[in-house]
Amino acid sequence: MLLLNKEDIKNVFSMKDAIEANKEAFTIYSKGKSVAPLRTNIPVKEQEGVMLFMPGYVSDLECAGLKIVSVFPKNIEKNKPVTPATVMLMDATTGEVSSILDGTYITQLRTGAASGAAIDVLAVKEAKIGALIGTGGQAEKQLEAMLVARDLDEVRVYSRNKDQRESFAIKMNEEFAHYNTKIIAVESSNKAIQDADVIITVTTSTTPVFDGNLIKKGALISGVGSYLHNMQEIDPVALTRASKIFFESTDAVLAESGDILIPLEQGLVSKENISGELGSVITGDIIGRESDDEIIVFKTVGIGVQDVVTAKRIYDKAITNKIGIEWN
Amino acid sequence: MLLLNKEDIKNVFSMKDAIEANKEAFTIYSKGKSVAPLRTNIPVKEQEGVMLFMPGYVSDLECAGLKIVSVFPKNIEKNKPVTPATVMLMDATTGEVSSILDGTYITQLRTGAASGAAIDVLAVKEAKIGALIGTGGQAEKQLEAMLVARDLDEVRVYSRNKDQRESFAIKMNEEFAHYNTKIIAVESSNKAIQDADVIITVTTSTTPVFDGNLIKKGALISGVGSYLHNMQEIDPVALTRASKIFFESTDAVLAESGDILIPLEQGLVSKENISGELGSVITGDIIGRESDDEIIVFKTVGIGVQDVVTAKRIYDKAITNKIGIEWN
Repeated sequence: MLLLNKEDIKNVFSMKDAIEANKEAFTIYSKGKSVAPLRTNIPVKEQEGVMLFMPGYVSDLECAGLKIVSVFPKNIEKNKPVTPATVMLMDATTGEVSSILDGTYITQLRTGAASGAAIDVLAVKEAKIGALIGTGGQAEKQLEAMLVARDLDEVRVYSRNKDQRESFAIKMNEEFAHYNTKIIAVESSNKAIQDADVIITVTTSTTPVFDGNLIKKGALISGVGSYLHNMQEIDPVALTRASKIFFESTDAVLAESGDILIPLEQGLVSKENISGELGSVITGDIIGRESDDEIIVFKTVGIGVQDVVTAKRIYDKAITNKIGIEWN
Repeated sequence: MLLLNKEDIKNVFSMKDAIEANKEAFTIYSKGKSVAPLRTNIPVKEQEGVMLFMPGYVSDLECAGLKIVSVFPKNIEKNKPVTPATVMLMDATTGEVSSILDGTYITQLRTGAASGAAIDVLAVKEAKIGALIGTGGQAEKQLEAMLVARDLDEVRVYSRNKDQRESFAIKMNEEFAHYNTKIIAVESSNKAIQDADVIITVTTSTTPVFDGNLIKKGALISGVGSYLHNMQEIDPVALTRASKIFFESTDAVLAESGDILIPLEQGLVSKENISGELGSVITGDIIGRESDDEIIVFKTVGIGVQDVVTAKRIYDKAITNKIGIEWN
């Protein structure tokens, strides 16, 4: 089997590749061409943690995969990632594990690429200003996805801790200098979003992180952080102002995300306001953006088929480029 | 994470180690100290195959694990294993994958060691003659377990194909020369079992593979092959003659094994004839062998905690002996 660590993946697989892979994953998902059994959760009480096992199968690509991802909040004290992950890619013609990949990096990549896919498909073409709320572990790849999907002049970055948002902005300006986009830390989330054409929220907040009245006409909002019922980042006002609301998976979002479940329960939006899935926009089965004035909301919680298809496309490029370690 | 292939495992972990690890696993299991969620099955129609994902968690050993095992009958045509497997061992203090191990070899090892544990605990001390019915992929480790658990003079081997049983006997005599036990291919299963103190059946037969009337007093039978409802190796007569019937897991055997389910349905034995679990014999909670005249049957179908504990004990020895490849 082929072993691919973070460096190997970086060497062969760009954010552009990841966005294409995730558009492919969403299309496969929305066409009903993937199998994703319920994930298995094993709680580990002593650590207040949980281990998640997420299998998936994509017959058209003759591959399957499993992501093992743990959520161990106490890992911070140990200087270890809070959500370590490993991905196993399987060859569906033999049932063998064909590759083991750094799942922590794949998670960042595919979660960023989900926003990138939404921006690619749904944002105004001439987007110039971006906003990023949240500077945690997923933020870098969210930012990169934004920079790849649109030619932005400026991205405004906000998180509550001043030192953290400023050092994040400095680091990102270096890391992404080749995109020629100014990355600026700002003092409030509203300052970040008010002229923005593209907005990404990636926090674990339980209350909305911006004022929905300030959203510019034509803006696209990609909500990434809220993956539990009690988490809410997107101001419901933004949902009521939106012309369209898309999900990567209607089932997954309506099972997990407070961003949508809370406003639904409060009667602020109804299921009729939900436009459908991004994959169906990509296939042309439903309509995406119709004018440069529409506010559009995209909400993603992450689905297993993203991991499988991303891992498969990384593996394909690694084989072509002879990258990684062959083991066993 | 530490990568351990078949050679690495062979280098540090003997069948004696495996038997100890499986006695430990059965004890943990029977004490209710393990968590084993239902396995996830993904069928792959094109290949008439199925991919199985088996997670498990043992809090006392601070470890968890997942075995991915596929059953792909058509792999024979491709010169690949029909049941390829990979085991991931996890550190339950951090949620990280700590080791990846050759799961095909671990399956053989722990399946052999289950019989070894039963022989160690339940066979007559002065056992001299062994019988092995079946010479397929699991047979070698079953034979080795027998040789480790008792000091046998002779083991009689039978399978339906004459060439295969004879070449198996020749190969095993070389492989296990240091045990000083004669390994002989015989022409019938009844010839194999009739004087045997220890009998292992490891076939995929759907009809009993020996005449239960010929079983010697004092014999121990370990039934390994029947893991589906339609599979049956053990003559029900042997069950009715047995003083005691033990399982590694009552739940698992009564869910899966035709060896027990078919005679139960036929009314040849009743649930009152079931004595309990091997783990409970090891802890002393129930009584094992009481005399050298008792015929005892042990039936195993394999449980996830065996894989987790075996992988953990292999990992521990590999760390101590600095064996394997550190990756990522």
